[in-house]
Amino acid sequence: MKDLKETTISSKRVYEGKILNLRVDRVLLPNGKESGREVVEFSEAVAIVPIAEDGKVLLVTQYRYPVGDVLLEAPAGKMDPKEDPETCARRELQEETGYTAGSLEKICEFYTTPGFTNELMHVFLAQELTPGEQNPDEDEFVQVEAVSLQDAIAMIYNGKIRDGKTIAGLLAAYNMLKE
Amino acid sequence: MKDLKETTISSKRVYEGKILNLRVDRVLLPNGKESGREVVEFSEAVAIVPIAEDGKVLLVTQYRYPVGDVLLEAPAGKMDPKEDPETCARRELQEETGYTAGSLEKICEFYTTPGFTNELMHVFLAQELTPGEQNPDEDEFVQVEAVSLQDAIAMIYNGKIRDGKTIAGLLAAYNMLKE
Repeated sequence: MKDLKETTISSKRVYEGKILNLRVDRVLLPNGKESGREVVEFSEAVAIVPIAEDGKVLLVTQYRYPVGDVLLEAPAGKMDPKEDPETCARRELQEETGYTAGSLEKICEFYTTPGFTNELMHVFLAQELTPGEQNPDEDEFVQVEAVSLQDAIAMIYNGKIRDGKTIAGLLAAYNMLKE
Repeated sequence: MKDLKETTISSKRVYEGKILNLRVDRVLLPNGKESGREVVEFSEAVAIVPIAEDGKVLLVTQYRYPVGDVLLEAPAGKMDPKEDPETCARRELQEETGYTAGSLEKICEFYTTPGFTNELMHVFLAQELTPGEQNPDEDEFVQVEAVSLQDAIAMIYNGKIRDGKTIAGLLAAYNMLKE
């Protein structure tokens, strides 16, 4: 493979915020030319596909300000500093749905949109669920919905589920459980 | 359903760039409190799952500066102003792989990471492919790889494919073609 690497010439952080930072870099391209690169620095995150004993998957509805709509999503959240993905997955599942998982299995991981951010998403399958109290973050308002896995898959194709990590996670879990 | 909407109190664009803008808003939460919201404004985009006559899916390797690695991805790209998703999908497929599609079918659409950006990804299945010349953007260096769909699905679970739109698109196409 030809070397595709881009080398940093200079780097400037133009914004430092609450959940993200923005960096604007100059890079040297493989052809020797220069270009600019805008990078949103974001923490790693987890998403959980929680499947209950009755085969229903627990999803959450949440208002997403950047897109101006309520989305139906897999429970998810950012990793705290030094937190490992599995600990974060257990914490977010409990906070957003109230459930704790007897079985937690990593399915896959991916960059959510590697063209402009380093956000890395770890996806887990949670089973053997025990109900409990929801405990969301102070500025987070989520409602739990239980949907059959088959129905959730159909909602990907009919446009009722429109969140990337949820689509990837549901299909990856569905495909894995069918094998 | 309880009203989950967050209302904009004030909005400030802190950065205007080449591929993205950054906005920092104050919002009124459903509980009457205020909070801040950081929003990366990005264009809509498309990803294509191109499946050749021999059943192989055409993927592209590309250095992704924000994550510092070469990723194996579905052909994809941003929509030009006023361009519709299908036109963009045909253009990006041709630019990145050289192929044109006799059949192009929308599979699904999703927000890539709705917690901090409005980027909306339209995903297409492309079939009846005819080879031609690659024609990438000036600062874009991509190499085409043909992989059997079955192998591509396995690469989601073994960590060789680590791009969100590619995982969602491959699994959505695979599941649809198997029905």
